Amino acid sequence: MMRIDIISAVPDLLISPLNTSIIKRAQDKRKVEIFVHNLRDYAYDKHKQIDDKPFGGGPGMLLKPEPFFECIEKLLSERAYDYIIFPTPGGKYYNQQMANKFSLAKNIMILAGHYKGIDDRVREKFATDEISIGNYVLTGGELAALVIIDSVVRLIPGVLNDSESALNDSLMDGEIIEAPYYTRPAEYKGMKVPDVLLSGHDKKIKEWKEEQSKILTDKWKKINNLEK
Amino acid sequence: MMRIDIISAVPDLLISPLNTSIIKRAQDKRKVEIFVHNLRDYAYDKHKQIDDKPFGGGPGMLLKPEPFFECIEKLLSERAYDYIIFPTPGGKYYNQQMANKFSLAKNIMILAGHYKGIDDRVREKFATDEISIGNYVLTGGELAALVIIDSVVRLIPGVLNDSESALNDSLMDGEIIEAPYYTRPAEYKGMKVPDVLLSGHDKKIKEWKEEQSKILTDKWKKINNLEK
Repeated sequence: MMRIDIISAVPDLLISPLNTSIIKRAQDKRKVEIFVHNLRDYAYDKHKQIDDKPFGGGPGMLLKPEPFFECIEKLLSERAYDYIIFPTPGGKYYNQQMANKFSLAKNIMILAGHYKGIDDRVREKFATDEISIGNYVLTGGELAALVIIDSVVRLIPGVLNDSESALNDSLMDGEIIEAPYYTRPAEYKGMKVPDVLLSGHDKKIKEWKEEQSKILTDKWKKINNLEK
Repeated sequence: MMRIDIISAVPDLLISPLNTSIIKRAQDKRKVEIFVHNLRDYAYDKHKQIDDKPFGGGPGMLLKPEPFFECIEKLLSERAYDYIIFPTPGGKYYNQQMANKFSLAKNIMILAGHYKGIDDRVREKFATDEISIGNYVLTGGELAALVIIDSVVRLIPGVLNDSESALNDSLMDGEIIEAPYYTRPAEYKGMKVPDVLLSGHDKKIKEWKEEQSKILTDKWKKINNLEK
């Protein structure tokens, strides 16, 4: 069973996403254990202070190194970790290949910063993978941690059932966007499902899906300036 | 005050992130109202069915069009929406410029798919912005919705206080990664904060930060194959 540890200054944020949908099911099926560590529990001064002003000035508060070191070193004393992931705007863009890699791990740790971030010595000392989930600014690493966990957990064999198989998803097999999907009713408010999908003609349906997928993939590459 | 409506088949997933940290504070300060709509409340058949098999075959279940149409048309009958955002792998990559644009809106709707997605007529009829938060597969649009909301809400004037000002963040001002940050203690477990940050010499600190920022920005562009 995979184990994931998340260290966070706002652990409450993580509660409902970790207990809903596929991430919940993966835990119920004993395919993954997820532990959330409250940074404040590792602050040993009397005020349980976890943040402080940055050296050299500048706005905002920074998460202090000691609580992270205490928590991480405790976890490392208990087991080896395949990856210690540090979500950060300066990291490598997260992608499906990285999700595949992480899904094969036994133990993963994720260090979530908040506000202006974490004293850089934490990253320097412990991070094995610095990851950006995209080119935008978030308040903390918690949503990035959830994105990584969701994308990874669903790839663990036995988490999705056959009919949900991740193998058919957009982006799973290289960089392919799937054809549009439709379900009943075949006509709704004047909008019709493409005739071919109702034809029962497997070969034509397959050709249509491939053609549509190609159109959507080309469109996706074009709007995102990706190489052909 | 900005209004955000999210339509979701798994609304419970959204509870804790919408009630923590900056998103909570923005609501407490009456800078934003966020409403979560349970797709199932808009399924009017006796089994409250919200999903069905795709036409033309293929694995997985698809969210039916009617509950989305019912909910969206009800909301549209009550007010105009600046943006109806549809998170999808085939969309345009989300970035800080889009967050800035959305932060100026009055009313935003976000349509969250789950599992194999939503009958494509919903996208075709209503979506104004098809957005991908990154090149990876998620179980649903809920985490994407949260990423968009967090990135947008923190840009609304008055949500962050001066010392947290978003203007100093990495990626805010074009594509710049910030210099590393350090706080006390100046030396911890043999790891020292760079001397210059302790010098009190404002000009040298500024130069060091600019130099470090340039190094990290170049490194970030290199590992992500971004143009210079």
